[in-house]
Amino acid sequence: MSKLAVIALGGNAIIRGDERGTIEQQYANSSATIRNLIYLIKDGYNLVITHGNGPQVGNILMRNDAGESQYDIPQMPLDICVADSQGGIGYMLEKMLINILKEEGIQKDVMTIVTQVVVSKDDPAYKNPTKRVGKIYKKEQAEQLEKRKGWEFKKSSKTIDGWRRVVPSPKPLEILNTNIIKNIVNSGVIVIAAGGGGIPVYYDENGLLQSMEAVIDKDAASSLLATQINADDFYILTDVPYVYANYGTPQQEILEFLNKEKIEKHIEKGDFGEGSMLPKIKAALNFVENGGKKSVITEARKLEDRSFGSRITLN
Amino acid sequence: MSKLAVIALGGNAIIRGDERGTIEQQYANSSATIRNLIYLIKDGYNLVITHGNGPQVGNILMRNDAGESQYDIPQMPLDICVADSQGGIGYMLEKMLINILKEEGIQKDVMTIVTQVVVSKDDPAYKNPTKRVGKIYKKEQAEQLEKRKGWEFKKSSKTIDGWRRVVPSPKPLEILNTNIIKNIVNSGVIVIAAGGGGIPVYYDENGLLQSMEAVIDKDAASSLLATQINADDFYILTDVPYVYANYGTPQQEILEFLNKEKIEKHIEKGDFGEGSMLPKIKAALNFVENGGKKSVITEARKLEDRSFGSRITLN
Repeated sequence: MSKLAVIALGGNAIIRGDERGTIEQQYANSSATIRNLIYLIKDGYNLVITHGNGPQVGNILMRNDAGESQYDIPQMPLDICVADSQGGIGYMLEKMLINILKEEGIQKDVMTIVTQVVVSKDDPAYKNPTKRVGKIYKKEQAEQLEKRKGWEFKKSSKTIDGWRRVVPSPKPLEILNTNIIKNIVNSGVIVIAAGGGGIPVYYDENGLLQSMEAVIDKDAASSLLATQINADDFYILTDVPYVYANYGTPQQEILEFLNKEKIEKHIEKGDFGEGSMLPKIKAALNFVENGGKKSVITEARKLEDRSFGSRITLN
Repeated sequence: MSKLAVIALGGNAIIRGDERGTIEQQYANSSATIRNLIYLIKDGYNLVITHGNGPQVGNILMRNDAGESQYDIPQMPLDICVADSQGGIGYMLEKMLINILKEEGIQKDVMTIVTQVVVSKDDPAYKNPTKRVGKIYKKEQAEQLEKRKGWEFKKSSKTIDGWRRVVPSPKPLEILNTNIIKNIVNSGVIVIAAGGGGIPVYYDENGLLQSMEAVIDKDAASSLLATQINADDFYILTDVPYVYANYGTPQQEILEFLNKEKIEKHIEKGDFGEGSMLPKIKAALNFVENGGKKSVITEARKLEDRSFGSRITLN
């Protein structure tokens, strides 16, 4: 039987931080990333691909803002914007992957699934929204939007006098349709799912799904998806080849093999960046704690040589 | 074995022509439409739901325009905008349907699939783009956009001095992933697919998929999908309960039962509106010509009484 892997592509796999994000740039970047997945496919893995959507959903939010002020087109809430981004990015990756498989002479179907992810409406994240999304506003604009739309703002980390909308990043509890995804992917189809961490929804007191203005961490959602479909391996592809202790300092140290015990020690020492590596490490550890064989954190181009990258196991 | 139906929801199932299209309006309209599908589900039908995206993709195009002029955010091409709309609308319909099934005590999964539809790059539609998309512009604005973006414009049918962008509407040749869709839907899952007529792509000379700036007629794509998955019935839900000859004139006549012969006579006499009923009739006829049992053209609320609506069979 084939092995099953979930591959989480980082945001920079599609739009890099230093780019405007034209469609040509998005195709070039995703093509380079996707090409590296061929090594796993040739190794006999069935694949579910997940992806970030930070730059894309940011752009969609900005367009919503501009469309309203310029043409009086009603803004869509954040969950619809995330769903939009799943459609656009999923299609782009799917088409790209179909073409690369064709060039490689590999016969495989690729299917993109719009994915809702259930969170709790009582998640503690709601008391302290931290995820910055959309446009950087001046103080007066932010205050107006706070009044008019009930949005919450915090100072932007990028400019001194800028303010950005913040939304909560609640914990993913359940990925919808995982049984179907599992059946499809085990039949050999490559599935693209849970884009941008999934569309956040919660069950209300009647058990009905309701929208949530939030953004779910894509590595946390991907880890849960990998657990729910009993994947063997969980890959987090990012912009560094390894996990490091003291990243970016003279004491920087490659951590090639990590287990629960080692990770907990490193976390205690504050070795991992709060907003960058720490959530990836936690997602990777979560997967092996819930029965997964191994997690890998590395960059896409290291997939060619399967011995590279940081491997996370339970023991 | 369950019967299989493809249900094509018209654009007005989600945003009505007289509305701004706020998210509240979209939920209210789609909820009313979706509720009527319960009758088919209770009759034992497995369902694939397709839907239009005219107002939504129009809004997305306008937001792209405004986002570029206001914030210098690169515009996405039309195929990405269509894919975005599949994500957003698909999610909205999926969540709505899950909730209505729950209220009705029906145990069924719902899954939304981002869908590419292959057209020919030599389609004659490219010589005469007719599909109106996006905002109604004044003449000078249209001329500016024609110069700046190479868009083509035609007079809007809605206002005397309005102009709208026109794009080609090529014939759908192949819906991707229909074998997988067929398996999923025959297992009882309700599938939402081919939104907005699908994302238009074509095979280049190397057999690789390439993007197409076009919009595929959603009824034509839905008809092809219904054929490819061997559906029994094909429903086109629109804003009139029946097909009529001489619609809107004193000679208006309900056409309750139609077959190929009758349809051809009516088409010869010019009985069906070019931009409205004619493409629906053609899509409905196409389905029964390709082995489908019957097509139905009606409005959603007539589904409660299964004897209502216009039925199209081959003979």
